[in-house]
Amino acid sequence: MSQPRRVLLTGASGFLGRHVQPHLLARGFEVHALNFGDQKDWAAAGVEAYDCNLLTHEGASALMEQLRPTHLLHLAWTAEPGIYWETPDNLRWVAASLNLLLKFQECGGQRAVIAGSCAEYDWNYPVAHEAQTPLNPASLYGISKNALRAIAEKFAENSSISLGWGRLFFPYGPHEPKARLIPSVIRALLRGEPALCTHGRQVRDFIYIDDAAAALAALLDSSLTGPVNIASGEPRSLKEIVSAIAGEIGQPELIQLGALEAPAREVEKFIADITRLKSELNFTPSTGMHAGLRASIDWWRNR
Amino acid sequence: MSQPRRVLLTGASGFLGRHVQPHLLARGFEVHALNFGDQKDWAAAGVEAYDCNLLTHEGASALMEQLRPTHLLHLAWTAEPGIYWETPDNLRWVAASLNLLLKFQECGGQRAVIAGSCAEYDWNYPVAHEAQTPLNPASLYGISKNALRAIAEKFAENSSISLGWGRLFFPYGPHEPKARLIPSVIRALLRGEPALCTHGRQVRDFIYIDDAAAALAALLDSSLTGPVNIASGEPRSLKEIVSAIAGEIGQPELIQLGALEAPAREVEKFIADITRLKSELNFTPSTGMHAGLRASIDWWRNR
Repeated sequence: MSQPRRVLLTGASGFLGRHVQPHLLARGFEVHALNFGDQKDWAAAGVEAYDCNLLTHEGASALMEQLRPTHLLHLAWTAEPGIYWETPDNLRWVAASLNLLLKFQECGGQRAVIAGSCAEYDWNYPVAHEAQTPLNPASLYGISKNALRAIAEKFAENSSISLGWGRLFFPYGPHEPKARLIPSVIRALLRGEPALCTHGRQVRDFIYIDDAAAALAALLDSSLTGPVNIASGEPRSLKEIVSAIAGEIGQPELIQLGALEAPAREVEKFIADITRLKSELNFTPSTGMHAGLRASIDWWRNR
Repeated sequence: MSQPRRVLLTGASGFLGRHVQPHLLARGFEVHALNFGDQKDWAAAGVEAYDCNLLTHEGASALMEQLRPTHLLHLAWTAEPGIYWETPDNLRWVAASLNLLLKFQECGGQRAVIAGSCAEYDWNYPVAHEAQTPLNPASLYGISKNALRAIAEKFAENSSISLGWGRLFFPYGPHEPKARLIPSVIRALLRGEPALCTHGRQVRDFIYIDDAAAALAALLDSSLTGPVNIASGEPRSLKEIVSAIAGEIGQPELIQLGALEAPAREVEKFIADITRLKSELNFTPSTGMHAGLRASIDWWRNR
């Protein structure tokens, strides 16, 4: 009988964590999921759920010893919109993540995937490629993720674990924090209120959350090491996105482009090269913008 | 009355830590010094000494709350020759250092200096300059120090603390771990045994430990931020150094250059630009090679 494939999933109640659970189950993983906080109904049927604050790491250590997971999917991090870029919690998350990875390796762990971020890149390069684009993060969040990656990669190389790094671009969809762009525009329009936007010429790569979650599960279930961009490969301007939302909901006159000033140093174009995702992981995101936005809008209608 | 200048010194019983204490006292600091382990007689007269294991950080947190130091000089790290480059302890030290810095800031700390390393640089560039030389560390130790620096610098920029980063080259002198080059050659010659060496053409920048310690104290006592190379500015080949040792002790025939193979990827020249140390910190190392080696030899004679 083969050893059970047992994954410890952190950040399980978060935006990504909720969506990744069914994909892990579908791949035959035994899923042990950690959450801290007052979220409800976050664990999918068939998932073992635990309350555990990773920032006081004793709990996680004991759990790791008890479960001895073969796999680790580490998504937990402070992700509060507007706050997470510069919060000192970034330091706590780096420390907690290093301790978690050490403990995972000590307990016989084999394969880990950690959620990275497109914030690791130098955004002055409009198309981000894993092996070619300079890493020059501007925010404490990006610096912290990048620093964690550098250490974790070398530690994995030195030890017996295989490490993948999912460099996430901009996921959107059900359960997205409501202060972010897409939910805030959807909610305004559903309420018949104006949606104040910047000029909207910014081109970004948004990925539907279920595609991002499926890609993370696929990455965990592979032996691919190093960073992999997780993005849709379909860059869009913010103007196209908010127009598509208005096209679904109606009320296009509520979209007020130019009402807000864009941040002074915001770059106009920053998108992902997803060659590695497609050709090395054999994963192609399948949800187009209109389908993804429709699903998001339906979800917010029922809130 | 002005606020007392109170420094929390970590790694106080280590090679650097022992030597830095008198310099901190001479500059009028109230010195609270942390040590963990079985070292004896490491605290200078006038220094408050504490046993504290930073890797289980509760002790350090409580002490920080109790002392509320204005200054932090963080030297503690695993430094065991041959081991420290790739030990998983590097991850623990990054985590502990981040927690220490957070707590220092929370407790009203104003000025911190952390010991960095020339291992942060890309050694393919023979002359390391703080602002110009790429950072591309090859070892887990170098990666960890560099990652800590990147996070700590941004955190300091965001918060109210001033952070200096002492990028240490190769200190030598009394209390140096005996497995390192200079002590091992000195000890062999003092015992009348052969000192097996590589070809000796490697050019490095060794700095006498008391100069390195004085430079760190000066850096702490300044408002200079960012990395500062701490080196002698007098590069020497290893051959010159071992010849100088033999010149002091006698027995030059015991020096066997070429008896050991140099590591395959070892670069021949890697030295420091110390312009920043001299012109921005106004610090010039004062101990020449012969005086430093004589002091080291005298110290080992008495062991």
